[in-house]
Amino acid sequence: MNGVSGKQIRAGIVGVSGYSGVELARILARHPGIALTAATSDRWAGQPIGRHIAVEGDAASVTCVSQEAGKTAFGGLDLLFLCTPPEVSIDLAPRALAAGARVVDLSGGFRLPEGDYPQWYGFAHADPGLLHQAVYSMPEAASGDVAARLRAARLVSNPGCYATAAALSVLPLLRAGLIEADGIIIDAKSGTTGAGRKGSEEMSFSEVADDIRAYRILRHQHTPEIDHVLATAGFAQVRVVFTPHLLPVRRGILATAYGRLTPAARAGDVNAAVEGALAIFGAGRPFVQVVAPEAVTLHAAVGTNRVVMGARADASRNVVVVLCAIDNLVKGAAGQAVQNANLMFGLPETEGLLGLAGHAP
Amino acid sequence: MNGVSGKQIRAGIVGVSGYSGVELARILARHPGIALTAATSDRWAGQPIGRHIAVEGDAASVTCVSQEAGKTAFGGLDLLFLCTPPEVSIDLAPRALAAGARVVDLSGGFRLPEGDYPQWYGFAHADPGLLHQAVYSMPEAASGDVAARLRAARLVSNPGCYATAAALSVLPLLRAGLIEADGIIIDAKSGTTGAGRKGSEEMSFSEVADDIRAYRILRHQHTPEIDHVLATAGFAQVRVVFTPHLLPVRRGILATAYGRLTPAARAGDVNAAVEGALAIFGAGRPFVQVVAPEAVTLHAAVGTNRVVMGARADASRNVVVVLCAIDNLVKGAAGQAVQNANLMFGLPETEGLLGLAGHAP
Amino acid sequence: MNGVSGKQIRAGIVGVSGYSGVELARILARHPGIALTAATSDRWAGQPIGRHIAVEGDAASVTCVSQEAGKTAFGGLDLLFLCTPPEVSIDLAPRALAAGARVVDLSGGFRLPEGDYPQWYGFAHADPGLLHQAVYSMPEAASGDVAARLRAARLVSNPGCYATAAALSVLPLLRAGLIEADGIIIDAKSGTTGAGRKGSEEMSFSEVADDIRAYRILRHQHTPEIDHVLATAGFAQVRVVFTPHLLPVRRGILATAYGRLTPAARAGDVNAAVEGALAIFGAGRPFVQVVAPEAVTLHAAVGTNRVVMGARADASRNVVVVLCAIDNLVKGAAGQAVQNANLMFGLPETEGLLGLAGHAP
Amino acid sequence: MNGVSGKQIRAGIVGVSGYSGVELARILARHPGIALTAATSDRWAGQPIGRHIAVEGDAASVTCVSQEAGKTAFGGLDLLFLCTPPEVSIDLAPRALAAGARVVDLSGGFRLPEGDYPQWYGFAHADPGLLHQAVYSMPEAASGDVAARLRAARLVSNPGCYATAAALSVLPLLRAGLIEADGIIIDAKSGTTGAGRKGSEEMSFSEVADDIRAYRILRHQHTPEIDHVLATAGFAQVRVVFTPHLLPVRRGILATAYGRLTPAARAGDVNAAVEGALAIFGAGRPFVQVVAPEAVTLHAAVGTNRVVMGARADASRNVVVVLCAIDNLVKGAAGQAVQNANLMFGLPETEGLLGLAGHAP
Repeated sequence: MNGVSGKQIRAGIVGVSGYSGVELARILARHPGIALTAATSDRWAGQPIGRHIAVEGDAASVTCVSQEAGKTAFGGLDLLFLCTPPEVSIDLAPRALAAGARVVDLSGGFRLPEGDYPQWYGFAHADPGLLHQAVYSMPEAASGDVAARLRAARLVSNPGCYATAAALSVLPLLRAGLIEADGIIIDAKSGTTGAGRKGSEEMSFSEVADDIRAYRILRHQHTPEIDHVLATAGFAQVRVVFTPHLLPVRRGILATAYGRLTPAARAGDVNAAVEGALAIFGAGRPFVQVVAPEAVTLHAAVGTNRVVMGARADASRNVVVVLCAIDNLVKGAAGQAVQNANLMFGLPETEGLLGLAGHAP
Repeated sequence: MNGVSGKQIRAGIVGVSGYSGVELARILARHPGIALTAATSDRWAGQPIGRHIAVEGDAASVTCVSQEAGKTAFGGLDLLFLCTPPEVSIDLAPRALAAGARVVDLSGGFRLPEGDYPQWYGFAHADPGLLHQAVYSMPEAASGDVAARLRAARLVSNPGCYATAAALSVLPLLRAGLIEADGIIIDAKSGTTGAGRKGSEEMSFSEVADDIRAYRILRHQHTPEIDHVLATAGFAQVRVVFTPHLLPVRRGILATAYGRLTPAARAGDVNAAVEGALAIFGAGRPFVQVVAPEAVTLHAAVGTNRVVMGARADASRNVVVVLCAIDNLVKGAAGQAVQNANLMFGLPETEGLLGLAGHAP
Repeated sequence: MNGVSGKQIRAGIVGVSGYSGVELARILARHPGIALTAATSDRWAGQPIGRHIAVEGDAASVTCVSQEAGKTAFGGLDLLFLCTPPEVSIDLAPRALAAGARVVDLSGGFRLPEGDYPQWYGFAHADPGLLHQAVYSMPEAASGDVAARLRAARLVSNPGCYATAAALSVLPLLRAGLIEADGIIIDAKSGTTGAGRKGSEEMSFSEVADDIRAYRILRHQHTPEIDHVLATAGFAQVRVVFTPHLLPVRRGILATAYGRLTPAARAGDVNAAVEGALAIFGAGRPFVQVVAPEAVTLHAAVGTNRVVMGARADASRNVVVVLCAIDNLVKGAAGQAVQNANLMFGLPETEGLLGLAGHAP
Repeated sequence: MNGVSGKQIRAGIVGVSGYSGVELARILARHPGIALTAATSDRWAGQPIGRHIAVEGDAASVTCVSQEAGKTAFGGLDLLFLCTPPEVSIDLAPRALAAGARVVDLSGGFRLPEGDYPQWYGFAHADPGLLHQAVYSMPEAASGDVAARLRAARLVSNPGCYATAAALSVLPLLRAGLIEADGIIIDAKSGTTGAGRKGSEEMSFSEVADDIRAYRILRHQHTPEIDHVLATAGFAQVRVVFTPHLLPVRRGILATAYGRLTPAARAGDVNAAVEGALAIFGAGRPFVQVVAPEAVTLHAAVGTNRVVMGARADASRNVVVVLCAIDNLVKGAAGQAVQNANLMFGLPETEGLLGLAGHAP
């Protein structure tokens, strides 16, 4: 296994040819502490990754094996990323753990309490025991000694892209006591890669371009995940209203969140309080960038692991509007997965995640 | 003036080379009851419209005069459409009225109560007397004998694009008593033509494509217009929260509106009540089309004068979500202006406004 | 059959829910001389067209039947448009003719000489007898009494979209003797609707947006069609080089054609000669619009049945560059089909085809 | 100047807020051998780069000075990149050289023979003496000991984006004797960032989206540059026909080149010969990637310094079609500038230029 230093973590990706898998391979290809040494993909089986992804170096020569062959090929890996549908992740995770690898799962397979699966995912969870052991980790939302928890975790559940943008948009204001738990609305807009790499008429260019539409209105499976993250952070009474929209862009999520001001917030200079709350949240969280709300754009976030945020309040209309942008494939998937892996293995949280943005615009 | 029958209304357009002006010329070119006989444009001065707009027939040969020359060339017109900035409309409207033409103004020059101009438009209204005579007309929102009021009107103020989509998205539910006046949120997304035809870095393709951003957050001048329309319709206590976003599409507005359910709404089958309210609203309003909320798309509205609407409620989260799509240049500008003109001159409301959509997708 | 006047042609569309079918329905819905009275579509079977297409009037209430049921439901129709794959058209055309309808086929089923089918379409033609009777008709390219030929035709083969833009871009200059038959290159760029309405990963928004690629390089089935049209027009020795590209736009084709100047062209003022040739071509062809070459844009053509053309030559580099834009679904499909139908039934060539463009931009 | 190691080259960027300047800052921010220590920008004067560009590390804290102040602030720099209009570069380059910095100019100010300036750039060159000293450098096109020439160069002229894609698309086949010098046609399509960062109506989203158009037909200033590169490479008789088109994408150039086959090429297996010629060209050129012609896409090139190429020939039509894709801001500007700087300072050619693509799609 040329190019892997003795100190590097040896990592594999299941499902490398999907959009999250591609992104993960790109990040790992330049990560100093984690070496990509194995990958599975049915469409690229038998071929080196470098034939399909613009990566250079050792990662480019990693040869894909089929998904089926991959099931029994987890030996020798320290870490496995699952870029697979929930049902597949639920099947693969215990195999990988048994083979000695620690696992970061990017699917929804280990995100919700067991009882929520039938309603929101349409199936009963097949491995509740493992579900209870899984550690859900959105580092910016966590309380307490996150690093210690993750260093001990064997299976980490990586958050959903919408849930990340949505939860982080309101958490600073909840923490600061500026908004009510009741009446939070999150109007989110996502690029098409959030739907994965596949062909369907409704995701075709002819249908998506020059358009925007809402989907799964009041029925999206990230709704309970947002509630769950916020409950874990201490706000158990929140029940968000969440509406996802499909944008004619490939990457990025913009969440526009609305909260009702608390009496305390209305009593003072509400915009100063809001800015203060965001500044406090941003301090010590290396990926959070606070800007003016009109400067929160997909352009500012895409290609990076950043969470770009800004807000404005109007006491006369009893509202604060928070804008929050992330890259759905980086902070919303592969980047956050690497951030979690860094914490699991005691590496610096930002390792391999700075200087990512190869291009702008 | 060849091609104008004795019975046709003779109409002119001031500012025909802007996006609203172009759209208006296209509509009038195939309108059986209104003949386009004059147009002003500095950039096309001295040239026939047909050199720049894909229209055929008599309208194609109407020759543009400069804006300056146009000021004194309103003679012989029955009707003048002003596709001009607010300040210019406020200057031109009395001249046109004095010359005997009736006026439909597409700007914001006559939309708000006098006292709102300094805060929202940044200037004191220069002609408050005329402002008080102007008739603001969004036909679908009006109560009473709209046709009679418009038949008597000399100066009609045509609504803003955002205000149209926003007000119509919540009015059916307010009328049905299903949502509270308090806590209405309208998250709106617009194509770039809403900003007019002009060059600026922030509207350049390189800056707008692959992006979405909110702008004038809690400060957009359509906010008081929405409140004003709803107040006129009987809901004086409403103060909407309105957030406009810039989409990477050229045409269309999608408004996603959120309302809090009234106790009465929560008491029964809320989705049945919501559907009933929309159906009642759609009945007798020829341009309102009610569909499933996931079917409310820009594609369904662009190129037509339609208001495409759908909604879904969730009593457990105390919310109803309404989706509403219009074409910002048709129902949001030129189409609604012709609809108003039809009513002013006693023509059928839909004349010249059906069969508009030349193409899909 | 309400709304059909005794004098109107009664027409049906097989495959109305595809992009060409939708466009055809829109055009027929406002055509004074042809009434849409029947339509087939599996996905819309049992539903009125107006539920899916923004048309008003009688056409909106035409109820779709399934493709299978449609095979035996051609009775009472004067005219049938086939918006179907080539193999299906070859099967359906004789049935429709036997039932008494005249046919315009929009597929490639009747466009090429029999011997070209195996190489370019991948199958042997199943009905060579009918193929020989079919009349291929691109009105702007035809010589002689086109109207008379079409009035007698039972089965008309409607040209391909690329072939229309490509052939018309070079024909004026060939006719004027300004370019050599040898060395003609046509670099064409098309919107995604040219690929039809279907789901595939390669046509997904995520793959098409922010990109352009060439496809079927030197192997596209419109290549022999272009040669064939030009041969029929008197230029049998032409063998074009044709390269199609997929654009991240939904509608429109831009063809950039390159020709080598003849000695005669180089001898004089070549740009004057080129302009003259285009002007001659445009005269008497109502859909041809000649403009400066930099003004040939998709925006100028989309939504209309126009062929927008312009050219510039450089004697020092021995080349003339012709730009030609059409709407692939109108002039490249449904519009040209109606133009052919007008000629078949003795209606004015432009009937129902002016004033089409419902919107710009 | 914290963070600059003693061995690093100290570099400045004039015009860092333009698109090429931004890209250059991103590349330098992660370049191990070159440290960005100074930057000028009027719009960002007084502000650190990191406020506007998503870079981390020392480069983020470089504070911009105004363009005017920058003129006298070149002291202490080893290297200056000029991201300025040609006239400004011609003015600044001698000042920078006098201050002891070596210069890479990204404008057209030093690209053409003196006599070509009036016709193609519209001005007489103000510093012909310096022009003659400048070394034009497109490394993949050069012959002989490029590294030695650049190590000695004080002022390097960085190629134009179109010229790079165009020249490299045909050079391998000219070198292999497969295409004639006569009759080469290059049909190129570019993203909007090629036009720079500025506001103009013609570059606005409303005008560019859903469209494609050719511009400066037979008059683009990169035409003589392409001829010049090819002449320098030994093909003095070439006079290309070059047509640029504006795409509705932000980044990337696709060049589709057409060449007429030589008798030698037609005598054998022309496609084998073409593939062989590309393979020979790709060998030893680390940024050249040869793929199937249908796999040449903007997606494969954007974000990287790669030249992605593929070709297919057809002896029966006497043509070879070459597809070539680059990122106009990387290989077409900032990346090639860094590649040249690497060679000037004796660093590995690829240093800082691998692993650039932060994201896909």
